[in-house]
Amino acid sequence: MAAANGGGGDLKLLGVWDSPYVNRVQIVLNLKGLSYEYVEEDLLHKSALLLQSNPVHGKVPVLIHGGRPIAESQVIVQYLDEVFAGGPPVLPADPYERATARFWAAFVDDKVGSPWHTILFAREAEEKAGAAARIVAALETLEGAFRDCSSRGKGGGYFGGDGIGFVDVVLGSYLGWFKVFEKMVGVRVLDAARTPLLAAWGERFAAADAARDVLPDDVDKVIDFLQAFLD
Amino acid sequence: MAAANGGGGDLKLLGVWDSPYVNRVQIVLNLKGLSYEYVEEDLLHKSALLLQSNPVHGKVPVLIHGGRPIAESQVIVQYLDEVFAGGPPVLPADPYERATARFWAAFVDDKVGSPWHTILFAREAEEKAGAAARIVAALETLEGAFRDCSSRGKGGGYFGGDGIGFVDVVLGSYLGWFKVFEKMVGVRVLDAARTPLLAAWGERFAAADAARDVLPDDVDKVIDFLQAFLD
Repeated sequence: MAAANGGGGDLKLLGVWDSPYVNRVQIVLNLKGLSYEYVEEDLLHKSALLLQSNPVHGKVPVLIHGGRPIAESQVIVQYLDEVFAGGPPVLPADPYERATARFWAAFVDDKVGSPWHTILFAREAEEKAGAAARIVAALETLEGAFRDCSSRGKGGGYFGGDGIGFVDVVLGSYLGWFKVFEKMVGVRVLDAARTPLLAAWGERFAAADAARDVLPDDVDKVIDFLQAFLD
Repeated sequence: MAAANGGGGDLKLLGVWDSPYVNRVQIVLNLKGLSYEYVEEDLLHKSALLLQSNPVHGKVPVLIHGGRPIAESQVIVQYLDEVFAGGPPVLPADPYERATARFWAAFVDDKVGSPWHTILFAREAEEKAGAAARIVAALETLEGAFRDCSSRGKGGGYFGGDGIGFVDVVLGSYLGWFKVFEKMVGVRVLDAARTPLLAAWGERFAAADAARDVLPDDVDKVIDFLQAFLD
């Protein structure tokens, strides 16, 4: 399927299967209809290729395109959108809409992603519960943002309108982990009673062709996997 | 000077004078030759316009362009670069170079900007010293990145090559605060012995037309100003 890459050269993704940050790159590769080689990394024994491709952070995801590495998931997603501009757009064309999408994407990683690390690594149950509460509050803010999108006539079921866009991918990649939070902390962060639009959006996103086979759905398997880093 | 805005409509910037995040927007407005109205905010008594323009964070900078607000400094810089594409480019045209610039810009705010908040708000001297050490380590990494830029033939004195680019603006906006660190913590974070290329780059950036009148140069005035938030 090299032709699907529009002559863009070979694509290799270094990842781990349960990482939202890796998953969002996979989802965009799927959205764009790009074929790629996936390399599963062992984060306790990182490959020489990973360390050499991302010497600064040594983290996944790393996308290697035509031999050149790109790191940081939001950077990779924007890169793919710019290089493979022929596929469905991920970021909107209009600069103001792009700025809005970048604003919310940054919000998601800051307010949803960062507290998650507290849930994972904090020793105290109280601290974990506080982090879960912050995620809930962030999702309530995002519910409002989603409502605003809809009222501005972008209401096609996604933040991006009719199709999955940047904010959808960035937030949607956490969906599998939301179930993990629930099991680990006992808080249902994405709840239909509290954030009905977002709960419906989540169902829609998780069922979309580009995301369905990417997002981890076995909560216990994720928890087992994470245990290795927590021990 | 409305004509300089290329028919892009009126520009208003809500800021505080000593904020690196505000300064970077001012520097890009200068680089692009754009005229704008500057509104100094009092962060202890935020204006209704600020709270209404950035209800999510209530933070400066906010750029209001043709009545529409944009928040988050890196988002604003990219917006200005896209809307006023006729001026000197801030991000490179090539998608791989853009990705590289976005990677380093994120690195700067994460590894240089975040520890700064620890220096400001931590109670313990040891914690402040640890944060300063992390900034020093980040600048050593950036020294390497700058050397790599030069060796790839982009060596025009800036990360962006001959002209000031995205990484220059994002890192350069902290230059005034580096002097503040030194006075507050006693650590010279940008030191010619440790990071000679970056030290020379800093001199060059601070003297550039677009930055010269923007970066705060009175260390004691900045410290007095910050004191209001620390008390």
